[in-house]
Amino acid sequence: MTTTPDRIDELAAAASAAAPIWRDSDAATRATWLRALADALDGAADELVAIADRETRLGEARLRGEVARTTGQLGLFADVVTEGSFREITIDEADAAATPPQPELRRLLVGVGPVAVFSASNFPFAFSVCGGDTASALAAGNPVIVKAHSGHPELSRRTAEIAVAALDGAGAPEGSFALVEGREAGNALVQHPLVRAAGFTGSVSGGRALFDLASGRPDPIPFYGELGSVNPVVVTPAAAEARGDELARGLVTSFTLGAGQFCTKPGVVFVPRGSGFVESVAAAAHGATGGPLLTDRITEAFPAGIAALEADASVRVAAEGVPGDGARPVVLVSDASAVAARPEVLLEECFGPVTLLVEYADESATLALLQERAGRVLFAGWPTGVAVTWSQHHGGPWPATTSLHTSVGATAIRRFLRPLVFQDAPAALLPRELRDESLERTPHRRNGVLVLP
Amino acid sequence: MTTTPDRIDELAAAASAAAPIWRDSDAATRATWLRALADALDGAADELVAIADRETRLGEARLRGEVARTTGQLGLFADVVTEGSFREITIDEADAAATPPQPELRRLLVGVGPVAVFSASNFPFAFSVCGGDTASALAAGNPVIVKAHSGHPELSRRTAEIAVAALDGAGAPEGSFALVEGREAGNALVQHPLVRAAGFTGSVSGGRALFDLASGRPDPIPFYGELGSVNPVVVTPAAAEARGDELARGLVTSFTLGAGQFCTKPGVVFVPRGSGFVESVAAAAHGATGGPLLTDRITEAFPAGIAALEADASVRVAAEGVPGDGARPVVLVSDASAVAARPEVLLEECFGPVTLLVEYADESATLALLQERAGRVLFAGWPTGVAVTWSQHHGGPWPATTSLHTSVGATAIRRFLRPLVFQDAPAALLPRELRDESLERTPHRRNGVLVLP
Repeated sequence: MTTTPDRIDELAAAASAAAPIWRDSDAATRATWLRALADALDGAADELVAIADRETRLGEARLRGEVARTTGQLGLFADVVTEGSFREITIDEADAAATPPQPELRRLLVGVGPVAVFSASNFPFAFSVCGGDTASALAAGNPVIVKAHSGHPELSRRTAEIAVAALDGAGAPEGSFALVEGREAGNALVQHPLVRAAGFTGSVSGGRALFDLASGRPDPIPFYGELGSVNPVVVTPAAAEARGDELARGLVTSFTLGAGQFCTKPGVVFVPRGSGFVESVAAAAHGATGGPLLTDRITEAFPAGIAALEADASVRVAAEGVPGDGARPVVLVSDASAVAARPEVLLEECFGPVTLLVEYADESATLALLQERAGRVLFAGWPTGVAVTWSQHHGGPWPATTSLHTSVGATAIRRFLRPLVFQDAPAALLPRELRDESLERTPHRRNGVLVLP
Repeated sequence: MTTTPDRIDELAAAASAAAPIWRDSDAATRATWLRALADALDGAADELVAIADRETRLGEARLRGEVARTTGQLGLFADVVTEGSFREITIDEADAAATPPQPELRRLLVGVGPVAVFSASNFPFAFSVCGGDTASALAAGNPVIVKAHSGHPELSRRTAEIAVAALDGAGAPEGSFALVEGREAGNALVQHPLVRAAGFTGSVSGGRALFDLASGRPDPIPFYGELGSVNPVVVTPAAAEARGDELARGLVTSFTLGAGQFCTKPGVVFVPRGSGFVESVAAAAHGATGGPLLTDRITEAFPAGIAALEADASVRVAAEGVPGDGARPVVLVSDASAVAARPEVLLEECFGPVTLLVEYADESATLALLQERAGRVLFAGWPTGVAVTWSQHHGGPWPATTSLHTSVGATAIRRFLRPLVFQDAPAALLPRELRDESLERTPHRRNGVLVLP
């Protein structure tokens, strides 16, 4: 069921009409809209989890947790909106004595306009219809049009119905939220003249195709793709010494969780050479059980991804688990010099229950490599999921993301904001947030100095 | 004289080797490097201005002012580095009691790596070899490779020599700065695997071509183009009433300054219908003198740009000045409803001495239109140059810029930074800026709350 071009035009026009209302909405109102959405999803959790489990087989416990994560994420963005720093309000006072005389400047960030969101297969709630991209785009003050993932169509439709009703009930304008379906609809959406930015969670190939469409427009728009990521973890010599067996067992649990289909899976683990950690992981992995993968495409890609890693001369198999009724867990081993020489091969994400242990001798060289290649560096500890917090971040240099900033954590909001500066404007013509009376309650910078309320 | 591919490889390899040193440099060191560069340029101002005047004919007064602006800009970025907010340090403390348990996260922004900078024809200092893109890229902690503009080759070479010597003398690593020449070299630079981002100031067509190369790479990189901009100014009814004649004379001086070849020229001025302001501008413009344009391409494009505006049914000519030995100043008039209907025609930048007066009746509708289309909205007052300050901003939605953020003002630095998060890292393995002892002197966010030093 593909949304027709005419219908996409209608939805985009409605979103564009709603955009100035979102942009000009004050913090309290916008936070209310986000919280209404969270409350409606929490209220419908039983129904939504049942649909999601039928469509994705991810299990009720995992899916309930994911609903809580999703509504918690909406709540975090309501807090971000209320706190106000995201507007980056900056005032430079006029200085007639300067050469040349300096005008008064008042700057803030405002929403870019309607945002297209492409939802993910593997997180039917947290990175789908009302997931991180949607929450951050709304928080930035933008209407959202979501492209549903074909892996959970009924869930997408029902979630969108609930979202539309919740926003409407809270007083948000018509056109604030919509859903489209079908690959062609997604392609049309990212090229639609009224769409001003796009967020995507999924494969490198799918993301690249949409990135190319967004960049190829007569008026290019930013495309934020959350693509492959290996979540490198460093086990220090001290950690291996103090609790190597416990860490090894934890790693096996973590990389096989959900059959290894979390984008936050510990895909590459740097371990001290000669510490016995590889042997501990191998021992723990022998009993590990795999499971069915989410889609046919992922099922086919998993053995191909392992074969690509094994083709590297540095790589050997340390252990294999049992397939259960699906993919068999695999532990591979390589070394840090090979990874430094061929990162494009050895740091490639392989979706499914596999992890690559990388033996290192030089801790500082390892850290230097990771700071070049990664956006998040973790130290011994599992699970490696991304807590929804102010400082969280997921992704990193291509091919992890298409952009400098990602859909995870509070700063995801910055992707959907643009600066607007008013020079020597009469106070009455300024947006409310830039007037003196608003500054008393908002963090801002005045003449270069940060000021807290 | 085109830089060869082999030489570009050498320069990129040297920049890439210098990148971790810039990334890890502390604030005081990095600020010293920026100030050394500013001091060296100030010290060589006599020599540089003489070369620049020979190559661009922009005149000594203007060029001396531009050197001061350029070194002031480097000084502002030294202040930005010292102040420290640009790193956006964010700490979330561990919370073992949370469900799931929350790890400790420490986040900062770091330099992206070597940056390619494409310099401009119309600002041989402030947006060229050591201009805004270079200053902000260095401040973000990145080596820079500049593509010289063919309009001022000798100035570019001499400025680069001074920059290399100044950085070397201040202890910055080899590879911190380099210059390449020739269109093919520029194309190669933006596609070079070791180049991580690019900044550009120039035409929409030139910027678009390079944007397409940057976006089309196997690993796309961000390309920040500062392209066309019309710097919309609003004259309120009160301002027209109180000082209409003075504002009209000031506008004529401003839009003909440098023969209208500032990207900050007031290209579109919204004026109250029936206020007599159009007539005042027409009267002031009759005596205005044009002048020669910078290049043959600009000379040919100017009458074509005016013809494109005049082809709109809403546009009439209000006044023409005298050509002097170059382009004749022109004042055009249209109305707000036409601009709202055809912004892509009527808000197109036309480089040279022309301004479009747009008559409006409804102030709030005018402001709404401008907030959609512009990045900076100015109110009655000239000149319309961009003061180098914390809140400044130039550019706006495409075709003003290719990105959300621009090369003007303190926030230009953010274009060349990427986030890096450490999860549960031992303190000794953290970058210095993220350790507890550094936080005492840097603005940061802890558990969601902004903390000042």
